[in-house]
Amino acid sequence: MNLRLVSRMLGSVAWLIGAAMAFSLIWAFPQCGAGQAEFELKAFYGLIGSMVVCAVVGGLLRWYGRGLKDATLFRKEAMAVVGLSWVLATALGGLPYYLGGMVYRADAAGEPMTMGVAECLFEAQSGFSTTGATVLSQIDNLEWAPRCLLFWRSSTHFLGGLGIIVLFVAILGQGAAGKALMRAEMPGPNKDSSHERMQHTAWVFAGIYCALNVVMAVVLKLEGPTTARGHITWFEAICHAFGTMATGGFSTMDASLGGFESPLVEYTVTVFMIFAGTNFTLIYLFCLGKPSRLFTDLESRTYFLIIAGATTAVIVFGYIDHSGQGRSDFDPTETIPAWQEAEIAFRDSLFHVVSVMTTTGFGAADYDQWSNASRALFLFLMFVGACAGSTGGGMKVIRHILFVKIIGREFELSFHPSVVRHLRIGKETLTDPDLVRTVLTYVGLIAMVFTTGWLILVAIEPDSTWTDAGFSIDNKLMDSASAVAASLHNIGPGLGVVGPTQNYALFTAPAKLLFTFLMMLGRLELFAIFVLVLPSFWRTR
Amino acid sequence: MNLRLVSRMLGSVAWLIGAAMAFSLIWAFPQCGAGQAEFELKAFYGLIGSMVVCAVVGGLLRWYGRGLKDATLFRKEAMAVVGLSWVLATALGGLPYYLGGMVYRADAAGEPMTMGVAECLFEAQSGFSTTGATVLSQIDNLEWAPRCLLFWRSSTHFLGGLGIIVLFVAILGQGAAGKALMRAEMPGPNKDSSHERMQHTAWVFAGIYCALNVVMAVVLKLEGPTTARGHITWFEAICHAFGTMATGGFSTMDASLGGFESPLVEYTVTVFMIFAGTNFTLIYLFCLGKPSRLFTDLESRTYFLIIAGATTAVIVFGYIDHSGQGRSDFDPTETIPAWQEAEIAFRDSLFHVVSVMTTTGFGAADYDQWSNASRALFLFLMFVGACAGSTGGGMKVIRHILFVKIIGREFELSFHPSVVRHLRIGKETLTDPDLVRTVLTYVGLIAMVFTTGWLILVAIEPDSTWTDAGFSIDNKLMDSASAVAASLHNIGPGLGVVGPTQNYALFTAPAKLLFTFLMMLGRLELFAIFVLVLPSFWRTR
Repeated sequence: MNLRLVSRMLGSVAWLIGAAMAFSLIWAFPQCGAGQAEFELKAFYGLIGSMVVCAVVGGLLRWYGRGLKDATLFRKEAMAVVGLSWVLATALGGLPYYLGGMVYRADAAGEPMTMGVAECLFEAQSGFSTTGATVLSQIDNLEWAPRCLLFWRSSTHFLGGLGIIVLFVAILGQGAAGKALMRAEMPGPNKDSSHERMQHTAWVFAGIYCALNVVMAVVLKLEGPTTARGHITWFEAICHAFGTMATGGFSTMDASLGGFESPLVEYTVTVFMIFAGTNFTLIYLFCLGKPSRLFTDLESRTYFLIIAGATTAVIVFGYIDHSGQGRSDFDPTETIPAWQEAEIAFRDSLFHVVSVMTTTGFGAADYDQWSNASRALFLFLMFVGACAGSTGGGMKVIRHILFVKIIGREFELSFHPSVVRHLRIGKETLTDPDLVRTVLTYVGLIAMVFTTGWLILVAIEPDSTWTDAGFSIDNKLMDSASAVAASLHNIGPGLGVVGPTQNYALFTAPAKLLFTFLMMLGRLELFAIFVLVLPSFWRTR
Repeated sequence: MNLRLVSRMLGSVAWLIGAAMAFSLIWAFPQCGAGQAEFELKAFYGLIGSMVVCAVVGGLLRWYGRGLKDATLFRKEAMAVVGLSWVLATALGGLPYYLGGMVYRADAAGEPMTMGVAECLFEAQSGFSTTGATVLSQIDNLEWAPRCLLFWRSSTHFLGGLGIIVLFVAILGQGAAGKALMRAEMPGPNKDSSHERMQHTAWVFAGIYCALNVVMAVVLKLEGPTTARGHITWFEAICHAFGTMATGGFSTMDASLGGFESPLVEYTVTVFMIFAGTNFTLIYLFCLGKPSRLFTDLESRTYFLIIAGATTAVIVFGYIDHSGQGRSDFDPTETIPAWQEAEIAFRDSLFHVVSVMTTTGFGAADYDQWSNASRALFLFLMFVGACAGSTGGGMKVIRHILFVKIIGREFELSFHPSVVRHLRIGKETLTDPDLVRTVLTYVGLIAMVFTTGWLILVAIEPDSTWTDAGFSIDNKLMDSASAVAASLHNIGPGLGVVGPTQNYALFTAPAKLLFTFLMMLGRLELFAIFVLVLPSFWRTR
């Protein structure tokens, strides 16, 4: 293990994070129109202080790894850089909240409580991992939640999403199991070496990602007049674009997307969420004017079918539960025409199915109040996830497709052990001997991590977390399962005490650290984090 | 597919079941001391009628397959026989309840409701699969639950356990993945062919199984004076021996084992349950006077360690939850000495950990009232299961051992892709190339079946099942998960509405059929049932 090379690359990550913080500084000025009346002095200095720390830490790490410009990055070093840079980003990214004195909730007497170490790590990890789970319960309060820190919070989504898009390319370049996830049309000059092609692809994808963020922010800004209050600020437009394209889910309002009260905005965000959950190669082809691949590609076709199927199921469950009233959060005191009822049922169901399945986690209505069958379906969708090669988290649709194909083949092998049958995705035959093992290992490992995380959470978290939030402890086991799933698969909100109108503020510090760990595990698809604790990984070869 | 050969073997199964029913007949006579005052006329004729049906069905099946004495049984036929004989046994085994007019619950007006088709199939499958889940809520009532039918109910456990022990040997004989589950010390003359050795082993195991049932019945009978009422009848002793050695869990009292109110009986049953969950090869060695292998064998050592660890955890959770009172179902109005408190805590915890983990499902206290952490642990233990080659269900300890070893190797392969490292169990190196794939497939498939079963149950079962039973619908999702796990892993009781003091009576017929299917799937380890619905399985080769 070339530790000095790893150190040098981590130093660059620290510098990058520090540099990104500069963009949040300007939102401390009330003139920028984020909504506050006064200059956010403490938060401004908190950001400045964090930038200094980033610069110093980055400098030290680069100093330790000086003079290694041409060293080769082997697989082990690459894994170490990926895993450790996420750990480093979490620690550095949480600094602004800590130094800036962000308030995350009121105590029993109504006094503000500032974020401790566990809260800062949680919020930073939730941002970088594009989870969008939050411990902040008072972000509408301009005094308690400085706008510049909220902008930093949304920026972590942007950075995390960018990192994942670039990593996806890097991992694909390494071959083996990743090949099944790659599309033949990956951008890049065909005749060049795999390394040059990889670099080119990464730049193209990063460009598309940034462009989509800009487009979405402009669209949201233009749709401002359709909201209840008649406008959307640039601050809100940019933050929500960051939250959407990274499939993160941080909002700038306690009511999340619902705060805009605009069907048009909800539909717009739905479309962009679907986009964000699609393989970037297909988005690239879409931008090149070849949208048809979106519907011929097996993974994205399955992804659209699951969205359509789940939306239909949620609508049906809503109608059954409310005997002929489609809207899942139907209010019997309201009387509205049936077609409007149906529109709301369709919009709410589609929005939340997409929000959960793409692992974004925005909220527009309280789906936790819907029927138990819908709630169960949402928990199930958390385990499905978005498409490979997107910013979305979760297990990814392609893994489920491969898993089902593998199971089908195993059934046949059980009575015809000598049959040789290769797996196929579309027209392509998958001959990689490691593929079956890696897909199956991933599915099994997710089940193991989920179960273990759930057991630990139930054992360490006192029942008072539920009773304090006004919930029955009958919900503890299920809510805990949803919280672990929502963290591990990078969704954000779960059920009950962590439902879409709730947050993670009331959990104890150990539970918050557990969630932080699970978010990191899920985002890096388990291996890059788990190997960090293996002694054999660090042994010099 | 040689359908006539399959038919002939199924005919023998039908005859065997009919013959086994004869042993239940005698308990219709009050002279046998099962407790009833009058001859159980209707139930007696119900049994006779069922025997006639078995004889006719068996005769027809054998007639269709006549003259095939020397045909070879290939893998496909063997799988078909195993899968279909379980289906056939379920249909035939439910007949006595139907014809005998067994009452399973009172309706809203307190009137008796007799078992319908879904209830009969459920109860028969629960017996043969050694699950022990029941729809009978009134078995203390001598009028509503004839003793001879209760004996038949316990007999299905005995037959199911015997079938599994013999199948285990048969499957081992087929080699491939089963080899990892086999112990080198399997009984049988070493120089003979694998076929002869298999037959010998099957006979030895069947003999030990029967002998253990007899020994346990005698021990229980002798322990009668320690119970609250001063005696145990032969009827009870035999039924509970059947329920224990098959890891089934059917009792003859609504209060299950708790009805005896005897610590000695509870400890005795605990010891026999542990035995029943152990690999039969080790029990065979134990009977030969080599008990040491029980503690050197990796699987049984792990099995004992999990029992010890889980028991300790449940005791600790109990003390934490009741601030210094160990007993998990602690009653603050009672005052008993601390050592007695500790003894009850130990006994209750051990009993239920063993009961759930061996997939027996007997109840002595209401563990559903214990802390949420303990409840979560019980749900987790359902997924662990007993040892391979025992009558216990679940995923089996050896699969978890192999799974953890495979995961560990995958971590290493992720950064050292070229390393060649074989899995080892004790001193033995596992070189079978299919082993990793089959273990991983099983784990993934269980997760898929569990999730799908849970989603279906939540979607089809109305909330009224919970409110009618006096439970909050907050429990629906978790209780449903536990019910699906308890069926799939052949435990019986779960949490909440299917907790140890509850039963499956209130579920709708579709849900009962779903449970019936899950019990069968779990008992035959998924494949033998799933292949039955594949067209390619039935295509003649």
